[in-house]
Amino acid sequence: METGLLDAFAQEYKLLLDSKLRKLVEKLEAPSSIKESMIYSLEAGGKRIRPLLLFATIDSFGIDPQKGLYAACAIEMIHTYSLIHDDLPSMDNDDLRRGKPTNHKVFGDAIAILAGDALLTYSFEILSRTPKEFASADTKLKLVIEMAKAAGTEGMVGGQVADMEGEGKSLTLEELEYIHIHKTGKLLRFSVLAGAILSGATQSQLQYLSGFAHHLGLAFQIQDDILDLVGNQEVIGKPVGSDTANHKSTYPQLLSLEGARASLQKQIMLSKEHLTKTCLNTNLLNEITDLIASRDH
Amino acid sequence: METGLLDAFAQEYKLLLDSKLRKLVEKLEAPSSIKESMIYSLEAGGKRIRPLLLFATIDSFGIDPQKGLYAACAIEMIHTYSLIHDDLPSMDNDDLRRGKPTNHKVFGDAIAILAGDALLTYSFEILSRTPKEFASADTKLKLVIEMAKAAGTEGMVGGQVADMEGEGKSLTLEELEYIHIHKTGKLLRFSVLAGAILSGATQSQLQYLSGFAHHLGLAFQIQDDILDLVGNQEVIGKPVGSDTANHKSTYPQLLSLEGARASLQKQIMLSKEHLTKTCLNTNLLNEITDLIASRDH
Repeated sequence: METGLLDAFAQEYKLLLDSKLRKLVEKLEAPSSIKESMIYSLEAGGKRIRPLLLFATIDSFGIDPQKGLYAACAIEMIHTYSLIHDDLPSMDNDDLRRGKPTNHKVFGDAIAILAGDALLTYSFEILSRTPKEFASADTKLKLVIEMAKAAGTEGMVGGQVADMEGEGKSLTLEELEYIHIHKTGKLLRFSVLAGAILSGATQSQLQYLSGFAHHLGLAFQIQDDILDLVGNQEVIGKPVGSDTANHKSTYPQLLSLEGARASLQKQIMLSKEHLTKTCLNTNLLNEITDLIASRDH
Repeated sequence: METGLLDAFAQEYKLLLDSKLRKLVEKLEAPSSIKESMIYSLEAGGKRIRPLLLFATIDSFGIDPQKGLYAACAIEMIHTYSLIHDDLPSMDNDDLRRGKPTNHKVFGDAIAILAGDALLTYSFEILSRTPKEFASADTKLKLVIEMAKAAGTEGMVGGQVADMEGEGKSLTLEELEYIHIHKTGKLLRFSVLAGAILSGATQSQLQYLSGFAHHLGLAFQIQDDILDLVGNQEVIGKPVGSDTANHKSTYPQLLSLEGARASLQKQIMLSKEHLTKTCLNTNLLNEITDLIASRDH
């Protein structure tokens, strides 16, 4: 596995993304407090895994990944808004994220709510502003609809509701998967689908890439649960065992640690099987998959 | 003035809108709590002034107003989300709206935040789902961008931030107008513009209708401030004088009551002047304007 390839790719597009995100917010004509709050959370040191998936998907078609820059910014705005709102006192009540004070600790609850609202709203504008030479109006509308579904009641928001309502209860594996597929899976899947749609994927490529992203999302979440149990607190940036303390159901709890590790391997295998069937040059997507399986934070 | 004409029109399209809004939320596959919360606030008895403006604008072109049903639902979802978030304890902390408990008093703060997020997200999906025979992909994309601008940092959200930051300060008339133009004006204006865009308005019609909506929005807000000072508490549904109690700057405060009334008349006159220049059949829009000038709640 040449990790160098992915590293260089990730570095290049992260720079491009970070610079574009900042410019897009800076040019807004609005009170400075809300812009500062938006930028604070956009630049709070995320792994940019969703944009990376989008760029790597486009790359697998042999197309210039820059085509996906507006979509990548839109997705990262949605991901960021969801973190800001999830951290609020009436939600998860977190004071720290990635080692930095959460948005509402710095700007107050009201501005944090509004910064989340603003990022969500702006994401749809930015996605729709993908330059004409990169996507037709029909393609952009399809992306808007898919992004809304991934982020809304039938996606991320629905998953967050189920997660909250499941706290303190013993969930079945099926209930736990519902939460993860919706809370994190749908937006991860959209990141891949958006890249595929922008690249003019065939119906069967869309299907295989969608399957790839589905299993990758589950792998990501299982690894998250395993890390919460056995990870190094300083590396993962939050207290080990916080799921147990928060009475959250986890894969290791339902399947045992060994069972969760086996399940992780199975999801990784399934996601790679789907990748192979696309008949694309999926080296980067394969590397991202390995990275997710072996990550320590 | 035949008020009967507007009454019948408003009644017909309100029924159509209410029924469509309920269906759109009911069909979502999601936890029931979030759907109930969304429906609760969508059905909390709003005046539906924004959808009415949209339908009446389309009617002024001699086109079937049903063409605007999806856009009307989208706009009402955005308006409703903004009320849910504005009422939260960390924002205006209101327990009652239109005489009913606010969303977070019934469903809790977390679900209220998520219901707002869900409505905002869904609004973009619904707008994009306007049937093909009513709008081309290009037209729908234009609507998505304009709606995002009206609702986001450069529109409603920015106005809300300025409003919060202006509390307890003596604002200039210019600062007060910035707040109103953004907090309520931009979405009112979008309601008219969306109708015009869906009707294939010419560039000059768009310009005059935009001017009409701008002045109508200011008239609406001046009348709001006047009612807060001299209205009948039982009719307006909130305590008279609440602006003064909340240390909010108002038109009567800056201009005196007489000055505010004169300013209201001026805005009404300006909005009607713009209407006349469109050379459309604007009877309904004229009636709505009169209604806003003379409303008692």
